Amino acid sequence: MKALLVDQHSESPTMKLGEYPDPEPGDHELLVKIKSTALNRADLLQKKSKYPVPEGESPIMGLEMSGIVEAVGKGVRRFNEGDCVFGLLGGGGYAEYCTIHEEMAIPMPDYLSFEEAAAIPEVFLTAYQALMWLGELKEKETVLIHAGASGVGTAAIQIAKKIKKAQIAVTAGSKEKLELCRSLGSSLQVNYKEQDFSEMIRENFGKNSIDLIIDFVGSPYWEKNIDSLSMDGRLVFLSMLGGAKVKEMNLVPILRKRLTVRGSTLRNRSSEYKMKLTAEFWNNTRELFEKEQITPVISAIFDWQDVEKAHKMMSDNKNAGKIILNRM
Amino acid sequence: MKALLVDQHSESPTMKLGEYPDPEPGDHELLVKIKSTALNRADLLQKKSKYPVPEGESPIMGLEMSGIVEAVGKGVRRFNEGDCVFGLLGGGGYAEYCTIHEEMAIPMPDYLSFEEAAAIPEVFLTAYQALMWLGELKEKETVLIHAGASGVGTAAIQIAKKIKKAQIAVTAGSKEKLELCRSLGSSLQVNYKEQDFSEMIRENFGKNSIDLIIDFVGSPYWEKNIDSLSMDGRLVFLSMLGGAKVKEMNLVPILRKRLTVRGSTLRNRSSEYKMKLTAEFWNNTRELFEKEQITPVISAIFDWQDVEKAHKMMSDNKNAGKIILNRM
Repeated sequence: MKALLVDQHSESPTMKLGEYPDPEPGDHELLVKIKSTALNRADLLQKKSKYPVPEGESPIMGLEMSGIVEAVGKGVRRFNEGDCVFGLLGGGGYAEYCTIHEEMAIPMPDYLSFEEAAAIPEVFLTAYQALMWLGELKEKETVLIHAGASGVGTAAIQIAKKIKKAQIAVTAGSKEKLELCRSLGSSLQVNYKEQDFSEMIRENFGKNSIDLIIDFVGSPYWEKNIDSLSMDGRLVFLSMLGGAKVKEMNLVPILRKRLTVRGSTLRNRSSEYKMKLTAEFWNNTRELFEKEQITPVISAIFDWQDVEKAHKMMSDNKNAGKIILNRM
Repeated sequence: MKALLVDQHSESPTMKLGEYPDPEPGDHELLVKIKSTALNRADLLQKKSKYPVPEGESPIMGLEMSGIVEAVGKGVRRFNEGDCVFGLLGGGGYAEYCTIHEEMAIPMPDYLSFEEAAAIPEVFLTAYQALMWLGELKEKETVLIHAGASGVGTAAIQIAKKIKKAQIAVTAGSKEKLELCRSLGSSLQVNYKEQDFSEMIRENFGKNSIDLIIDFVGSPYWEKNIDSLSMDGRLVFLSMLGGAKVKEMNLVPILRKRLTVRGSTLRNRSSEYKMKLTAEFWNNTRELFEKEQITPVISAIFDWQDVEKAHKMMSDNKNAGKIILNRM
């Protein structure tokens, strides 16, 4: 089959279409002819060999896809040839075909296009896990979502708003991105380039007012995050793009405000965990997607031959929402 | 009634028996004639005015007691005059009488003495909360309990061992204290004055081997605690006796090992929380106490007139287990 492979001969790592062995569906697996896949930050790192591929996973990039079932492995009960599906992958989305366990595949409803479906798995499952499982979000709590216009951010705003009626504050780096967050359900938008989010939160929501923070930034925000949290507040780290070393950390507020600090990633979780997450997520959001109360946010769609342009858009932080690759 | 009051005329804060208004039972409250109470570290701080008394609580020290119901308030259904009870107090244990909500009182079984019953509430409820609710301890996990011979430590060893069949490591500062921990169910004893607990754990249990740490020490142990934790490990802080400032904290292991760091205290929790905790704790441990699989650990018993000697024993770290005050 054709697949996007890293060209080892070029000076800096770039991708080109090449030939790769066809995957074969094992027991309970589907062979899917991929229609769309989507970019993730992990791809940028993996291309530079900075993100180790988990054992047993495809070395091809691409952590999610939508497509059509081409064949089914032994014991598959939920799907048939010709069904449209989408779902999370351990890798292998930048290719013509992939395999996926039937419990990881979600039946694709008519009202979603292949592009929309491919924009859902990674960011919505990550956001759902962070808010609902790790962050234990409760009805009408107040949530601060950093990088609110990122893929996970836009998914998190919608889930927090539509499932838990949360009050939401976001940070982002441009007027357009903040406007997108507002339109999705945020009620306090902070441009981190111009404003101090902890001050803005104190002024608008009060001292110690944030029940849950979803953070991707790390050390530069540590103290302000801790300051903003309420009694029994939770801080969930999904990445540390701004750095990981905190000078002079004070444990006192952790004890006094009974805080929880948690780090997590989705990719290195067990298959059982991902299957359970996929099932619960789709159960609790299917109707909201159908009624367009929750929508996948797509920033741009590229032909997969233009993958390098797509990667550049992400590394330049130009996207608000997901970047899609279509196999033509 | 008589009560132990802080003598404001003495040079350093000391306690003396004095007169204090009798408490009156409100709706759903019991008036209890106290037989025994027990010391907590919070008492030492409170005596020096370093521990603010929570709103609505008695300014008299004493966070737990055992005694006999003298009268019942309106609406009390579970107890009658003459019943023996024990339980957690918001304050007021260093006195002849106290009041307690009936849902916070535990019916005292025949096989416990008043001293034994008074040794249970604060440390066992704190340990139960830390291990089971905050630490989400699972069957056969590995637990590190710092200050293993403290009141909470001795309770935590027993709960982890008897309810969850945990593998347990402890730290303590003397041979006698470590022997006590071993006899209660610990299988790795580290004298923190002579040995590095993280090295000992690595040698005996392996790298990244601790699922849950119960810590009272804070910053001096931060890095070694984080190093010792396993994938999905949890670190629960109950106090920070060794300091609260960490010079350089690295967030990377929190993300990579998907760690949870949590701070908590019991005293400032809502009544509803404490009632629920009391009920679940007694439900899950009553039989173990009856079969002496779990036992209250008493270090010393003093007449309440000797309260200053008792406090000195605690501030000198001479106790292993609880220090009891009996009203003669």
